[in-house]
Amino acid sequence: MDAIQHFQSNKERYLEELLDLLRIPSVSADSKFKGDVRKAAEFIKTKFEEAGADTVELVETPGHPIVYAEKIIDPKLPTVLVYGHYDVQPADPYELWDSPPFEPVIKNERIYARGACDDKGQMYMHVKAFESLVKSGSLPCNAKFMIEGEEEVGSSHLETFVKENKKKLAADVILISDTSIISNETPSITVGLRGLSYLEVEVTGPNRDLHSGVYGGAVANPINVLCDMIASLQDKEGHITIPGFYDKVEDLSTEQRSEMAKAPFDLEAYKKDLKINDVKGEKGYSTIERTGIRPTLDVNGIWGGYIGEGAKTVLPSKANAKISMRLVPHQDSDEITEIFTKHFESIAPKSVKVKVTPHHGGEPAVISTTSPAYQAASRAFEEAWGKKPIPTREGGSIPIVALFQKELALDPILMGFGLDSDAIHSPNESYGLFNFYKGIETISHFYRFFSELEK
Amino acid sequence: MDAIQHFQSNKERYLEELLDLLRIPSVSADSKFKGDVRKAAEFIKTKFEEAGADTVELVETPGHPIVYAEKIIDPKLPTVLVYGHYDVQPADPYELWDSPPFEPVIKNERIYARGACDDKGQMYMHVKAFESLVKSGSLPCNAKFMIEGEEEVGSSHLETFVKENKKKLAADVILISDTSIISNETPSITVGLRGLSYLEVEVTGPNRDLHSGVYGGAVANPINVLCDMIASLQDKEGHITIPGFYDKVEDLSTEQRSEMAKAPFDLEAYKKDLKINDVKGEKGYSTIERTGIRPTLDVNGIWGGYIGEGAKTVLPSKANAKISMRLVPHQDSDEITEIFTKHFESIAPKSVKVKVTPHHGGEPAVISTTSPAYQAASRAFEEAWGKKPIPTREGGSIPIVALFQKELALDPILMGFGLDSDAIHSPNESYGLFNFYKGIETISHFYRFFSELEK
Repeated sequence: MDAIQHFQSNKERYLEELLDLLRIPSVSADSKFKGDVRKAAEFIKTKFEEAGADTVELVETPGHPIVYAEKIIDPKLPTVLVYGHYDVQPADPYELWDSPPFEPVIKNERIYARGACDDKGQMYMHVKAFESLVKSGSLPCNAKFMIEGEEEVGSSHLETFVKENKKKLAADVILISDTSIISNETPSITVGLRGLSYLEVEVTGPNRDLHSGVYGGAVANPINVLCDMIASLQDKEGHITIPGFYDKVEDLSTEQRSEMAKAPFDLEAYKKDLKINDVKGEKGYSTIERTGIRPTLDVNGIWGGYIGEGAKTVLPSKANAKISMRLVPHQDSDEITEIFTKHFESIAPKSVKVKVTPHHGGEPAVISTTSPAYQAASRAFEEAWGKKPIPTREGGSIPIVALFQKELALDPILMGFGLDSDAIHSPNESYGLFNFYKGIETISHFYRFFSELEK
Repeated sequence: MDAIQHFQSNKERYLEELLDLLRIPSVSADSKFKGDVRKAAEFIKTKFEEAGADTVELVETPGHPIVYAEKIIDPKLPTVLVYGHYDVQPADPYELWDSPPFEPVIKNERIYARGACDDKGQMYMHVKAFESLVKSGSLPCNAKFMIEGEEEVGSSHLETFVKENKKKLAADVILISDTSIISNETPSITVGLRGLSYLEVEVTGPNRDLHSGVYGGAVANPINVLCDMIASLQDKEGHITIPGFYDKVEDLSTEQRSEMAKAPFDLEAYKKDLKINDVKGEKGYSTIERTGIRPTLDVNGIWGGYIGEGAKTVLPSKANAKISMRLVPHQDSDEITEIFTKHFESIAPKSVKVKVTPHHGGEPAVISTTSPAYQAASRAFEEAWGKKPIPTREGGSIPIVALFQKELALDPILMGFGLDSDAIHSPNESYGLFNFYKGIETISHFYRFFSELEK
């Protein structure tokens, strides 16, 4: 019996296991969930053991542990390295969830829970594809797995692990399922990713909260100043005004742009889904281009002054914001973080003090569509979906992709099965059962085609 | 024995009673303190009874109760009406207090607690001055007291009470201690107050929180938009850009301005006290003018997106802010609220929805310095402080002042004894024992001089 048959006769159990994993609130950003993050790691470890891996380790780091597993059937055969993460984004605001984020429910063929898609659902497809291949005796090559618990907080300790374990991680391809397809009717493979520069800023005015009547008008209000500074970071046409920001941004050729324009996109449906009357972005670019090939600047959070019930006439001492920039190929995350910091400090009026603290960053990436690995992925999709996948560029960032390219000299294959409508990072995140099952199938096919092509 | 002697021999008890009052967290803005607000009202009621008032009532309102007390010794004699409030501002951020806000402590001759000055400390001086006069048999005229519990939330129900009880509140002067003096060396009487227009705004972009990588750059970020909109409300020179905002603002004559400039003010000490390198305000005006005779716009609170620990790459659905404007004589609070709302809605880009909700407002006021009441207050200060008080304009708002002028046809006397450095509305609010005791003396003298002048 082959992997697909084994998967078919065990799919209910596979789903039940995923639901158990989703019940563990492994929020890496919030220290009060530290214990749960570890619990999730141990859960994955056990599942790899049950699936038939011959080595499984919980690798300790100064942060959350990395789960490493491998099965070497013959050192002469090609090796597939799989990357994924078991940590999830914070679930707040909780009140906007229709059902509790860590009590998964299945409604009209979809799993609703934080992490259902990003990345527990997508990562777990690999664990189960591996089990199907091993248990059906049809694993055609060696397999290695590196599943981390810090992706949502910048993979702080993965780089060290990768640098110190190049030999252990040696492989012929890295397979990652943490991206989306265009739609269930139009499968796609992501060949471009944006990078990320993420900072926290603090503006301090007076040394204490003041009465806005007694001091208002004469003392700089840090909230007003922060708003001025943030507003000045983009001009009326949506261009970012930080000097040097666009220096390394490559302008695509008319051919490349018209190629991109071919991807099916329905602006009206897009606006309807988000309940917005209009989109908003950099002048001169389409929505697909704004999220795919152009860098951006977004305030991800802002707070200051009195935010409780009722009215308080306070002129606050401080105002804070979390600001992130999405970067495109050739922009360097550290460099952008540096010029942002310099610029932000330079535009602060003398009446306030400004502190800029960088959070994590990540480099943008472009992936070859001519490698055997990409060809194998493309054929695997055709086999499972009956359609050739379209190569696309995605707006999100997977910083470790650039890390793998640099440290392991491997082009990752971003074989994701999510949909933009899965609401990852949002309340009511969900993942389609169809996508979960189709993903396991596609991954199983990939092993076969890749082994053949590499032989 | 006269009032001053009686006060001298009871001052320790007076202070102890104030500390008891300060232990009651009567925060009117936050519904969870509703019971405590009532407790404070009952405390005041009891103290008036003990002081010798012949009528004391707890007047119920749809909100917090009003304490009314009176002692009529002879209808033919003049009547002093006193206004004060027993509610306090919210105490957060609690972590910035050196000692718990509702556990008063006395350090270097100062009382530290929320409400120590605003207005429990200042209001309670009147209760004790009244007791001193009555118990020493030297009350020279009739006395009425109206102490409310909603001043910090816009005196929502006082207006109805005043309109429905004009006869009961009939008096020859209304005395209020809820303002500051220039310094303990330079006593002053407030003869001008700014009005207030306070609104809450909500900007809504997409119908749910989004992943900033997938949607960033193409969908309006409500935080960025809110910052743009707030920044646009003031120009580079600090002028407010709302059309019609300055229409009714009266420009003071060169004489009036140079008169104001005579009030002692040390800019370096001012900056040092606030630990700021520079002041910031409307071009062409001094710090005194910016807080005294010019209208302002301050953001009192702002919130949106992820404000927890760590980094979350979210493009939020909503962003909110509390915005207030201080108004000067002739500006109308409702009118300003209306033009702000119209303007704010008009500058919103098509890609977001905006909701503006007015909180409370209040009218600005100017007070005559030629009335017998003002003369009596001036002499009372001279008697107690050995110095003639300087008439000043204050930046804060006491909306009910305009209400009393309109409904009771009485010019209030703003006989305040606080200092700007008392940090009212801020952590570590305090009130000097010197000011508390000096206030009781000054108030007692006022009754005497006023009765003589009115005879």
